[in-house]
Amino acid sequence: MKIGVLGTGMVGVTIATKLIQLGHHVTMGARSPENQTAAHWAKAGGVNASQGTFTDAALYSELIFLCTKGEATLEVIHTVGRDAFGEKVVVDVTNPLDFSRGTPPPLMICNTDSLGEEVQKALPYARVVKALNAVNCEVMVNPAQAENPTLLICGNDADAKKLVTFLLRDFGWDEIIDLGGIKNARGTEMFVPASLSLAHVFGHSHFGFRVVGR
Amino acid sequence: MKIGVLGTGMVGVTIATKLIQLGHHVTMGARSPENQTAAHWAKAGGVNASQGTFTDAALYSELIFLCTKGEATLEVIHTVGRDAFGEKVVVDVTNPLDFSRGTPPPLMICNTDSLGEEVQKALPYARVVKALNAVNCEVMVNPAQAENPTLLICGNDADAKKLVTFLLRDFGWDEIIDLGGIKNARGTEMFVPASLSLAHVFGHSHFGFRVVGR
Repeated sequence: MKIGVLGTGMVGVTIATKLIQLGHHVTMGARSPENQTAAHWAKAGGVNASQGTFTDAALYSELIFLCTKGEATLEVIHTVGRDAFGEKVVVDVTNPLDFSRGTPPPLMICNTDSLGEEVQKALPYARVVKALNAVNCEVMVNPAQAENPTLLICGNDADAKKLVTFLLRDFGWDEIIDLGGIKNARGTEMFVPASLSLAHVFGHSHFGFRVVGR
Repeated sequence: MKIGVLGTGMVGVTIATKLIQLGHHVTMGARSPENQTAAHWAKAGGVNASQGTFTDAALYSELIFLCTKGEATLEVIHTVGRDAFGEKVVVDVTNPLDFSRGTPPPLMICNTDSLGEEVQKALPYARVVKALNAVNCEVMVNPAQAENPTLLICGNDADAKKLVTFLLRDFGWDEIIDLGGIKNARGTEMFVPASLSLAHVFGHSHFGFRVVGR
């Protein structure tokens, strides 16, 4: 597939690299078409890897991974505009972490709303699937590293969730549970504070949660 | 041990019954010393089971399980008064669910505060340990029913957490992880929305989360 990855942080680079390894054509999008991280990544990624603006990455793809920082996500979407996203499937990996308020960061949006829902509202034609946000980026693309946790996904479009499930099985995810509509992103985003506490206890982030007793 | 259980809902009755089975002396506390649920429970529980007011249950015990409804918890504590709790260990099983705002209920307190922290603030001498809140009450006392999930606990007093860990191992909990201070109750309480989503998907609540990859 032609896939756009918006964001050049660790999450964007890790996911984009995995997608290249799986044979997809990936455009990494950034604010600047000459973003240095994207340039290094594209050079290392070979012929299937390219870079561009956020808008380029959204336009020249069939599916989009949203890997921007939580606080920048809605602004990036508004800058790109809903038309570039069209009716595409958008995998929303973002977390609304507010790093301006000390450590551990609280969430900017939670409980009665979620960043996943705000992304879907900002992109009314796109089919947003919330996924992967609750684990470390290395676990995202290699769940075996964390002894195969369960992945909780949600979104309003059943076909979009099927496509994302298919794609993420290639990442190595065995058990993927569909929680229902995008409103359930509240729950998966609210998972993050306990994960941050556990990361502090363990001294690493290569863990996850497996649903047992279902 | 002499244990007080505050609350006569499903959680209070289930925990109090388990404690009796384990040989503890249990006083179930309610607003009224003649509460009918507590009376039935005490009659069925035998010589080690008794009932009383919330204050009785706090006073005549060495350890207290707080099993009140989220919205009533702080009011019950203020009515009983901090002196009745003294420096005892208080196991806070409550969730700040706001059932006045539709289904699924959001949390009344979250993200930058938690009910666990508020309980500790209201009981400055007591040693509050947040535990068990994120699972169904039948799983609380029989984690094998949910294939042995991980229990996350937190609290400011190390000895209190040791005592609670010892007690909950008797409930059947194998893996108990101490997240640190009571501030981490934010995370364990924020687990609840995803759990409610999963309960809706599964059609039952006899599941849990096992931490993998630690």
